[in-house]
Amino acid sequence: MPRTTAGPELDHLISLLSKLPGYGPRSATRAALHMLRKREAVMKPLGDAIARAYEMVRPCTVCGNWDTQDPCSICTDETRDKTVICCVQDVSDVWALERARAHRGLYHVLGGVISPLDGVGPDDLRLRELTERAGQPAVLEVVLALPATVDGQTTAHYASERLEGLGVTITGMARGVPVGGELDVLDEGTLAAALKARRPL
Amino acid sequence: MPRTTAGPELDHLISLLSKLPGYGPRSATRAALHMLRKREAVMKPLGDAIARAYEMVRPCTVCGNWDTQDPCSICTDETRDKTVICCVQDVSDVWALERARAHRGLYHVLGGVISPLDGVGPDDLRLRELTERAGQPAVLEVVLALPATVDGQTTAHYASERLEGLGVTITGMARGVPVGGELDVLDEGTLAAALKARRPL
Repeated sequence: MPRTTAGPELDHLISLLSKLPGYGPRSATRAALHMLRKREAVMKPLGDAIARAYEMVRPCTVCGNWDTQDPCSICTDETRDKTVICCVQDVSDVWALERARAHRGLYHVLGGVISPLDGVGPDDLRLRELTERAGQPAVLEVVLALPATVDGQTTAHYASERLEGLGVTITGMARGVPVGGELDVLDEGTLAAALKARRPL
Repeated sequence: MPRTTAGPELDHLISLLSKLPGYGPRSATRAALHMLRKREAVMKPLGDAIARAYEMVRPCTVCGNWDTQDPCSICTDETRDKTVICCVQDVSDVWALERARAHRGLYHVLGGVISPLDGVGPDDLRLRELTERAGQPAVLEVVLALPATVDGQTTAHYASERLEGLGVTITGMARGVPVGGELDVLDEGTLAAALKARRPL
C-alpha cells in the first residue's frame, strides 16, 4: 500500500530512503516531507550532492581509500611517512584515525574482514595488494589495526602469516581501557587484557 | 574539521544528510558510507529519485495537496464526495487519512497552524482559499481536522469564524480514547473529554 497520495515517484523515494541506516518507513516519510517542504534549500542540493559524490568519489587503486583523485590524497601526500602502512577494515576507520590525527603514515583498506558466516573469505579482501605493498623496500612496518572481534582477529592472524618473511615488522593496536572509560562498565575481556598489559606509571 | 578524507564533495553530502530529520553527523556519515558501498544499488537510484520527485511533485493549486498532477488526483477523482472538505494542517495528514481510508471527500491543506511564537499568522496559511472553496454551492460541510493542540484549536476557532455565514456545516474531529488505548497512560485532558462525551453502548 502506498504511503502517500502523491504518486509513484514520491513513494519510490520514500522506499529508497527507508533503506538508509537508521531509517524505516515512518522516518523516511518524514525525511521526504522535510525535503519537499524545503525544495530549494534541502531537496535540490541533496539530490545534486548525491549525484556529484557518486560521480567523483572512487576507491584509490593503491590503498582502497575513497577520494576524488586516484591515487588518493593520502597516498600522494609527500609529507607522510611511507615506511608505515596502517591496515584497516574499512574507509570509515581511515576517517576515524585521521580525525584523531593518530597516524602519519599510509593506509591500506582491506574492505572487510574474513567472516565465514557472511561468506567473506581471504580472496574477497585486498590482502594480495597488501602483501605486494608490504614487499616494497620502503615499507618497514605494517600495523594491523583491525577490529578486536573474533573475525577481526582471525583476519589479523591470517594477514600476519601472509606478511611473514617480507622483512616488515607486524604490529597491532594496543588493548586496554579506553580513554575516559569507567572500569565497571567495561567487559571482562578488556579488563583482563588491560590488567595483563599493565605498565609502570 | 572535515569528517572524511575523501574531499569536499563527500563532506558536503554528509553535512546535507546530517540535517535530515533523525540524522546527525555520525548517522549521516554512516548513511554516506552505506551509499558509497552500494553505489549502483542505493546511491544512484536515490540521487535519481530525489531529482525526479523534485521535478515532478508539486502542490495542487486547488487544495494544497502534493501530486505529480495539478489539480491533484484527489481533486480530480470523480468518485469522491465533493460536498465535504476535510481541512488539515499538512500533506502528511492527507496521507494518514487516506491510509486509514477515513475520508471519501476532498481535502484542503492549510500548510500549518497559527502560531504567534513561530511567527505564523492567518495570512501565512491557505485560509482565504478555504473560504473561497467553502463558498461554492456544492460544498455542504467543512471538517476542521486540525491538531488537538493549543495552536491547532486556535486555528480551528479562527477558521470556523471565517467560514460562518457561508451556509456550510462546520465540524471537528471527535475527542476520545484512541483505539487500542489504555486509560492509565492517557493524559487528563483526553480522559476528561472522553468521559464528558460518553455515549450509550
